Amino acid sequence: MKADKMWTNAYVLPMTGENGGLFEGGAVAVKGNKIIKVGKTADVKNEVAAEEEIDASGMLLMPGLIDAHIHSGLAIVRGVAQDMDHWMQKGLWPWMKHMTVEDRKAGSVMNIMEGIRAGTTTFNDYDSHMGELLKSYAKTGVRVMASEMINELPDDIGDLPVEEVYPFDSVIGEKKLQAAVDLYHDWHQAEEGRIRVMFGPQGADMMSLELLKQVQKEAERFDTKIHMHVCQGDREVYQMEKRTGMRPIKFLEKHGLLNNRLLAVHLTEADHEETIQAAESGAGMINCSGSIGIIDGIVPPVELFTSAGGTAALGSDQAPGNNGNNMFNEMKFAAILNKVKAKDPKVFPALKVLRMATTDAAAVLGMESDIGSLEEGKKADMIVLDTRKQTLSPVLLHPLENVTANLVYAARGEEVQDVIVDGRFIMKNRKLLFIDEEEAMAEAQNRAEKLAEKITFSKEG
Amino acid sequence: MKADKMWTNAYVLPMTGENGGLFEGGAVAVKGNKIIKVGKTADVKNEVAAEEEIDASGMLLMPGLIDAHIHSGLAIVRGVAQDMDHWMQKGLWPWMKHMTVEDRKAGSVMNIMEGIRAGTTTFNDYDSHMGELLKSYAKTGVRVMASEMINELPDDIGDLPVEEVYPFDSVIGEKKLQAAVDLYHDWHQAEEGRIRVMFGPQGADMMSLELLKQVQKEAERFDTKIHMHVCQGDREVYQMEKRTGMRPIKFLEKHGLLNNRLLAVHLTEADHEETIQAAESGAGMINCSGSIGIIDGIVPPVELFTSAGGTAALGSDQAPGNNGNNMFNEMKFAAILNKVKAKDPKVFPALKVLRMATTDAAAVLGMESDIGSLEEGKKADMIVLDTRKQTLSPVLLHPLENVTANLVYAARGEEVQDVIVDGRFIMKNRKLLFIDEEEAMAEAQNRAEKLAEKITFSKEG
Repeated sequence: MKADKMWTNAYVLPMTGENGGLFEGGAVAVKGNKIIKVGKTADVKNEVAAEEEIDASGMLLMPGLIDAHIHSGLAIVRGVAQDMDHWMQKGLWPWMKHMTVEDRKAGSVMNIMEGIRAGTTTFNDYDSHMGELLKSYAKTGVRVMASEMINELPDDIGDLPVEEVYPFDSVIGEKKLQAAVDLYHDWHQAEEGRIRVMFGPQGADMMSLELLKQVQKEAERFDTKIHMHVCQGDREVYQMEKRTGMRPIKFLEKHGLLNNRLLAVHLTEADHEETIQAAESGAGMINCSGSIGIIDGIVPPVELFTSAGGTAALGSDQAPGNNGNNMFNEMKFAAILNKVKAKDPKVFPALKVLRMATTDAAAVLGMESDIGSLEEGKKADMIVLDTRKQTLSPVLLHPLENVTANLVYAARGEEVQDVIVDGRFIMKNRKLLFIDEEEAMAEAQNRAEKLAEKITFSKEG
Repeated sequence: MKADKMWTNAYVLPMTGENGGLFEGGAVAVKGNKIIKVGKTADVKNEVAAEEEIDASGMLLMPGLIDAHIHSGLAIVRGVAQDMDHWMQKGLWPWMKHMTVEDRKAGSVMNIMEGIRAGTTTFNDYDSHMGELLKSYAKTGVRVMASEMINELPDDIGDLPVEEVYPFDSVIGEKKLQAAVDLYHDWHQAEEGRIRVMFGPQGADMMSLELLKQVQKEAERFDTKIHMHVCQGDREVYQMEKRTGMRPIKFLEKHGLLNNRLLAVHLTEADHEETIQAAESGAGMINCSGSIGIIDGIVPPVELFTSAGGTAALGSDQAPGNNGNNMFNEMKFAAILNKVKAKDPKVFPALKVLRMATTDAAAVLGMESDIGSLEEGKKADMIVLDTRKQTLSPVLLHPLENVTANLVYAARGEEVQDVIVDGRFIMKNRKLLFIDEEEAMAEAQNRAEKLAEKITFSKEG
């Protein structure tokens, strides 16, 4: 067999089998955008001749991480809505009201760079003006599943008193649905398939049932999943009960939306029964520990969801609130917050958490045949970590292996030396190859300052 | 006035006043090992002539962080004791039994490097063979408060069944006390005062009352604080009740140890009354959110302790269990875990957490006249962070400032560009100046592999 590139002599954590499959002296061979061989270096070299051999001694090869829920545009206001009640209405919306498409683009680029630098190779982005944001995704070379966020909320929604039911504007709703359909036509399977599109209603509380059913129809027509906030906070439950007399899970079930097409994001306020019902429906769960911990002070019921047989992924959510969009941050928080919630250090062991950022995340997104593990036939989305950094040292394989634990509990993201997507380097020696980082950061700072000049807070905010 | 160095045009977060005192266009002037002026660049330049001016545009200057509780030697076994019950007895002790002084030294150097790279300038280290570890501290140029950990436990304590009362060996106790006294004589105020020594009994459960009283006498004789684990887990409470019939706080109070000389580490199992009693006694608390969350699944009562008027600091504890020794990790965990415990996102706001890693930590350690803030007359322990990293971007000062929030909730540690202790660079452009990092990491890997060869686990472990 012929390969384009072959990494050799590395620790390899393919995320396969019962224990993740860690071994030393390993090699990964890549041809085009695919992995063609993974194994011991000598064995791989016996079977494969590579144009380029990369000696990866001291390095760890593992699948690129998957950030299963991010609103990348919001990074433009990182840190502006913290340590407060009514985070969304009083913290975020006063800024969103004035946010331009260009502001969101500048924020999104920051998040993409931040993610790549911390080993994220696939982003499940859920934002407005997604077509504009996808231009940056395309340029940087990462993999993305994109949803245009659909709601029927007027732009001045931030001025609404917290306890009032959201008003809906069907003209806005139709426009956003159309934008989502256009996004699908314009971008699905673009960039050699690195960009894919699904449908993303913002939440059952933020749109009429009529619009939600229309979204569902489109998702069925194009056979995509539906990326949606579900029970995303007391605010959602409050709105749903006031408007429909039902809590969100019951409402979704009643209207045929609670099934394996659904990516249920957060489930913050789902109670015991509802969580089990969601898990048994076949819906995937996306858990954002850092975000929900900071903005709501809550640990979502992901342990219960997975115990009930559901599959869950991790997401970094939005910068104002979390505030890092770094899957190493998410992994550690998912583990520790669930240990604390269960008062049990055995809950959420490292390997389970790693799966939720790789194989399980791929399954939740419906991408398991392409990404999530280093296996022959899968896309060559891989990260190369330097184990000689303090956080990954020492490396021990006997009498037990400490690599998975140190990846989850110690690594910060800066251990990621190289990032490969579709067999192509997009970061090498911590330098991003397809973007001028300095220029993009200056643009974001500049735009954020201009945006900040427009902001006024109401008295009670 | 004459200065040696002056940083100019920076964001400065001096950690003074009610809100931390953040301002832009700031300067810090340093002469010898002291800060002589902090203010707006033009004002400082009017008063001070510096030999060297460092243009710090785009940078943030703030006090070096204080890690108020670390067992640095244990980094040699990072990641070996995770996701388990009886973490100490079944996870850690099988390794400690075989750990040599050289192993600990190699681990300690890793922790020191890790800390510096994440902006830690002062380490409150609490370990065995501290005299040997201090040689590395001296070499790297950081500030350290050191305690030789005193107990009366035999080396094979790891073989003891979990439910049995620890046996004490008074010969070992005497030897360790003597080592602590020797440490004081040999090292206190060494390295131009950067090294200081206090006394550190490992816990009331791990020594006889007689030895504990002897330690207390030495601490009083030399007028140092006493660095001690208190209620550090159900294991300690169990041992104390079985041996003395008293819970730890009551025991310490009865024997005159619960007062402002005490640094009470963890308080994991302190109940409501005990926590308030400890706070009101004047003892300082050291809170290790990452460590206790991971090894016990518990959030210690630091919110209650500080609400009751106590002063608390943050510590990273040991690598096997936490596993990072990075104060940015600790700050975010302290905030989010306490928000979740209180089910309130307003609890533990960013500024409070920053104080616990700077000014409050200095007060807890009794070093508040020297470190913790950027103020005239204090030691020039300062870190320089690049705000153009994604995690600190954008920087906004109006209509609200997002810098403290992003430091606590987003920063990873790698934003720290330069580290200055006693007015001297010890890291510059992320390069450690006084240690060969590559050599030290290779040594640690080598030692860890040799140590691992000696380890056997009992059947039930």
